[in-house]
Amino acid sequence: MPLSSLLRPRAVAVIGAGREPGKVGHVVLVNLLNGGFDGGIYPVNPRAPEILGLRSYPSVLDVPPPVDLAVVAVPARAVPDVVSECAEAGVGAAIIISAGFTESGPAGAALQREVLDRAHRGGIRLLGPNCLGLISTHEKLNASFAGAMPPGGGIAFVSQSGALGTAILDRATDDGLGISHFVSVGNRADISEPDLLAALEEDSATTVIALYLESVRDGQRFLDAAGSAVRSKPVIALKAGTSDSGARAVSSHTGSLAGSDVAYEAAFRHAGVIRARTVQDLFDFAAGFSQQPVLSAPGVAILTNAGGPAVMATDAADGEGVALASFDSETLTRLREVLPDAAALYNPVDVLGDAGPDRYREALEALYADPGVRGVIVLLTPQAMTDAAAVARTVVDRASRSPEVTTLACFMGGPLVHEAQRILAAGSIPNYPTPERAVHTLAAMHAYVRASSASAPQLEETSAARETAHATIARARSENRTFVTEQSAADVVAAYGIHVPPGALAADQASALEAAGEIGYPVALKIVSPQILHKSDVGGLKVGIGSPAELSRAYDEVLDRARAYAPDIVVEGVHVQRMAPAGREVIIGIDRDPVFGPLLMFGLGGVYVEVLRDVIFRLCPVDMREAERMITEIRSFGLLRGARGQPPADLAAVATAISRVSALVLDFPQIMELDINPLIVGNHGDGVWAADVRIGIGGT
Amino acid sequence: MPLSSLLRPRAVAVIGAGREPGKVGHVVLVNLLNGGFDGGIYPVNPRAPEILGLRSYPSVLDVPPPVDLAVVAVPARAVPDVVSECAEAGVGAAIIISAGFTESGPAGAALQREVLDRAHRGGIRLLGPNCLGLISTHEKLNASFAGAMPPGGGIAFVSQSGALGTAILDRATDDGLGISHFVSVGNRADISEPDLLAALEEDSATTVIALYLESVRDGQRFLDAAGSAVRSKPVIALKAGTSDSGARAVSSHTGSLAGSDVAYEAAFRHAGVIRARTVQDLFDFAAGFSQQPVLSAPGVAILTNAGGPAVMATDAADGEGVALASFDSETLTRLREVLPDAAALYNPVDVLGDAGPDRYREALEALYADPGVRGVIVLLTPQAMTDAAAVARTVVDRASRSPEVTTLACFMGGPLVHEAQRILAAGSIPNYPTPERAVHTLAAMHAYVRASSASAPQLEETSAARETAHATIARARSENRTFVTEQSAADVVAAYGIHVPPGALAADQASALEAAGEIGYPVALKIVSPQILHKSDVGGLKVGIGSPAELSRAYDEVLDRARAYAPDIVVEGVHVQRMAPAGREVIIGIDRDPVFGPLLMFGLGGVYVEVLRDVIFRLCPVDMREAERMITEIRSFGLLRGARGQPPADLAAVATAISRVSALVLDFPQIMELDINPLIVGNHGDGVWAADVRIGIGGT
Repeated sequence: MPLSSLLRPRAVAVIGAGREPGKVGHVVLVNLLNGGFDGGIYPVNPRAPEILGLRSYPSVLDVPPPVDLAVVAVPARAVPDVVSECAEAGVGAAIIISAGFTESGPAGAALQREVLDRAHRGGIRLLGPNCLGLISTHEKLNASFAGAMPPGGGIAFVSQSGALGTAILDRATDDGLGISHFVSVGNRADISEPDLLAALEEDSATTVIALYLESVRDGQRFLDAAGSAVRSKPVIALKAGTSDSGARAVSSHTGSLAGSDVAYEAAFRHAGVIRARTVQDLFDFAAGFSQQPVLSAPGVAILTNAGGPAVMATDAADGEGVALASFDSETLTRLREVLPDAAALYNPVDVLGDAGPDRYREALEALYADPGVRGVIVLLTPQAMTDAAAVARTVVDRASRSPEVTTLACFMGGPLVHEAQRILAAGSIPNYPTPERAVHTLAAMHAYVRASSASAPQLEETSAARETAHATIARARSENRTFVTEQSAADVVAAYGIHVPPGALAADQASALEAAGEIGYPVALKIVSPQILHKSDVGGLKVGIGSPAELSRAYDEVLDRARAYAPDIVVEGVHVQRMAPAGREVIIGIDRDPVFGPLLMFGLGGVYVEVLRDVIFRLCPVDMREAERMITEIRSFGLLRGARGQPPADLAAVATAISRVSALVLDFPQIMELDINPLIVGNHGDGVWAADVRIGIGGT
Repeated sequence: MPLSSLLRPRAVAVIGAGREPGKVGHVVLVNLLNGGFDGGIYPVNPRAPEILGLRSYPSVLDVPPPVDLAVVAVPARAVPDVVSECAEAGVGAAIIISAGFTESGPAGAALQREVLDRAHRGGIRLLGPNCLGLISTHEKLNASFAGAMPPGGGIAFVSQSGALGTAILDRATDDGLGISHFVSVGNRADISEPDLLAALEEDSATTVIALYLESVRDGQRFLDAAGSAVRSKPVIALKAGTSDSGARAVSSHTGSLAGSDVAYEAAFRHAGVIRARTVQDLFDFAAGFSQQPVLSAPGVAILTNAGGPAVMATDAADGEGVALASFDSETLTRLREVLPDAAALYNPVDVLGDAGPDRYREALEALYADPGVRGVIVLLTPQAMTDAAAVARTVVDRASRSPEVTTLACFMGGPLVHEAQRILAAGSIPNYPTPERAVHTLAAMHAYVRASSASAPQLEETSAARETAHATIARARSENRTFVTEQSAADVVAAYGIHVPPGALAADQASALEAAGEIGYPVALKIVSPQILHKSDVGGLKVGIGSPAELSRAYDEVLDRARAYAPDIVVEGVHVQRMAPAGREVIIGIDRDPVFGPLLMFGLGGVYVEVLRDVIFRLCPVDMREAERMITEIRSFGLLRGARGQPPADLAAVATAISRVSALVLDFPQIMELDINPLIVGNHGDGVWAADVRIGIGGT
């Protein structure tokens, strides 16, 4: 298992252990002792022969080997030497609790680099600095400044905020949530989420990994590690900072529509990470995933003793796409036999307000016996005749005999259901305060099943296209252009098999007329100037030009407008292009996210792009299957599928274009942004035309 | 105060009081006695001389007057006579706990009618039957079968579900939420929500009214009572059953887009009722509204000892439209003086992880002194140095000296913050488990302030228009049409000042050519047949016809298509209509909701209506100001405002058309549905054109 020195150490040295209560070096030692760690615990402090009844050593070099883990709580300036001594002593990992590094300014940052450098040279992995430390309940290891040991269990929790980590650990005690590891990553000088994901993926004590993130540093490493972990266990992420600062200057449609949160959203989806929107989601999902089997397929039964909560559960299931089970006839017969006449037999099953535990039991027997029931939500309100605790015992008992079925509870109330809630918790049945939260957790399970079973992308071979496009892009780079020319952009996407109407650059009116004659009318005319990014904003675009006379007029008009827009504008000419056939308009765009790389946008195109914002994003690569899924996910998919008698659009050609754009930007890291807007989509079988293509380049 | 016999009785008789523990007639008496009611308590039971130490009377007629309230727990068949006896004894109100009425089938329904009839004749108000009863904490009156008395306070809770009521009361005990009245309405034979809203509006002990609804019976009474109550205190409603059954057969666009939940949503908005989406919302809002002043204006300060929760609060505020305060310079100076260098001074204010109560106090002093701060959210995570209880005491103390500022807390954690949570609860500072829930409550307060301060609709005088349209509608009724003709529909909306392009009905091709000659080309041609509701679905519509030759061809084509669609179709002719000028397309529609009356829809029109579903709804009347608001609320408002160099559309003309449609359907209850689709919207100043109008009529 990776990071075993950190997560499963044989012995731990506390460097900077102290005798003064309240100080970090004391608290960490107290926590280690109180945790009950079985291995060696060695205080290191040159000025104290004994601390808390343990012999203290002047240096880690004096401690009898092996020492796998050092917890460091000395002043920042002393940390580099401590790390070097640890290396000499054969320590495998060090937790640097000390603060005073990158978070405190340039001098601290330099010190952190020094510490990291010493650790690298000494072959030591570092957690922190400026962190709360680590708790591993199954090792009885509390190597932290975080407080009491939480209950043991399957949830590994990795937090970028020590403060939030403390609150969540403390709350876990209230909610009876079992923790395997708590890791406070602090400044992440060395160990960061990808390392921990890799380690926790292999940790048999961990059944679900929960992350609190404020940022991701190396997007590709994160995606790889999370994507791998998701294959074996759920990964839940709470990402703070979703509101868009809007600070980034962007020129493309795609860029203007993609805030930084869009990239995280796409990244989580790409890797199959379940996103928790709030701390409450994080708790709810972690409780469900860690205590119950993942809902394997659609088919949820709702059992209740009151109508209202059942309606709420049904509403929520409808809203979240959680399918209720249709019971088979045997189930209905059985329910009819055991329940009173007034009971509701169809899903939800209402055993009525006067139901005792027996009626719940009979109904549960029928439900668990139905092969179409993969999950059960048991609802209860404490009415006059209700014995909530007895019902809870019944649920725990019956659920334990069907360990493949996901069983969640929602026993609503206060003092009247407290004992029942304790019984459910002890029986590993998560109890949610509202029906909606139980359903929301099932929806997260559905999302996880889809994500964890997704197959690898099927990518097309594009070496020929790459070769064709290479020279064009290289030329644009050599000309120091930020945007390649209209014609070059057309050539590049054409190389990847996306049709572009024929066109030509014309330096003056006569050449424009000549070009149009060769290309054939109707044509569009577009001004070509490095100073104009959005042609239609300045009237630099005329479409549907049907004759040479119209073209002459259009030429003058477009140039006049350009000069009115900016008198000293440099006009390289006009681009004359055959009009694409009429069709529906979509957009395909690329924006390169600084963390996660190329982000592909698809949506309704033309004037609607920025108004309706009916666009969705994916990280590249996007293969054909994913492209097809994207198309169906936009709100206006109905327009493409064909609404009110209109024939369906050529969806296959759109999907092909999406996947080819994805291939293009992965082939050329120089492409910083790309907009095909509009991509004109013909009817089924008629293909697509890229009516306007912009490609921005940069980098190396 | 209305319903004072029910809510403030001087004495209570329990008819059907019994000696057998667990039976309703015993439990109710026990609850009454345990509640500590000060007035007379009189068991009525002919077969027991004494119950629970109280003298029992053979009949309510034997009880010494005055008896204001009777709680009835006798078998259903005995209830009518009991009610008659109550009337004779001068009882003002009766709570019928007994079941076996409408909920049990036709015989029970007949019995309920009998009971109601006797009550009406005797001048008695009825609560129930089939209900849990009533609790009024300030009267120490527990006239219910619901269990223990909840803590006293300002929340009145009216529930259509007894079971959910019990759960919520029980939970209120846990959360320390104070209740003024709990009313279980049962079958609502007599007293229903409007009666209770009117009574609770005048009840000084009640500061917030919470409703659990499964249905509303008399929409207008509900709207009137809720709208009135909202002027003096917040009304929160949790409505179960939001998922649309889709069972209703509808023919109009508007009808197909308006599920039943849309009507409730519009009704709550109309009356100013705050909607709780879940039981959790209900609790969160009730806690905030009952314990704190309503956030009077934008300007919220966030105070924290950890970055993560502050980011979450900021994200939520951004998403919910809750504006954070910008501190004035004095505040910033003061914060700079009292906080460490590393603290964040701008909103959110981060007092850092090692903050003690003093640092919180200093920061709070600065924040409460800032006139731009109307609300404060205090966040806390239990870190190593944190004294959560002391901070809680500080918050309670400082908040109590600024009773005009809304103060909410979010102390996150478990055992480490329990004492702090108790202190906050005792100090009437609502504590939310997550920052998002605190912000969500502030958003509800904003919504309440908007709703409670809204002025009455300003309606235009339309008597002239009504007179003009009257004959047309009367004629359509006399012809037994379900839909008025194209021309009549045009005449009706034109009477209300909405422009319709000139048109005429033509019985054959020659008359069509003649009509077009008079009207002027270009024209549109629409098939007229009672069997065709959606012309474009069957190719019965041709637009942009520029010449007589085109018109002849179009005529043949449209008729051929109609016959292909249905060989034995009855074609009354074609409607020839001048093409409206080009413009942006919107839809205005009316669907008459069976409970709440005319529901007005506005949105993006044409082919986009059903695909993008970018529409919003309001109950009528909709005045100009509300119409203007509707226009800005659709997602594609940007298209109307003018995007990418397009000039703004004539928004004032759209608002006028909306308000006129509202007036039209209020003037004519015979109009069951109406679609103007598209309404063509010209540029600013150019007006609007109703290109196609459908009006369905019915009723009396």
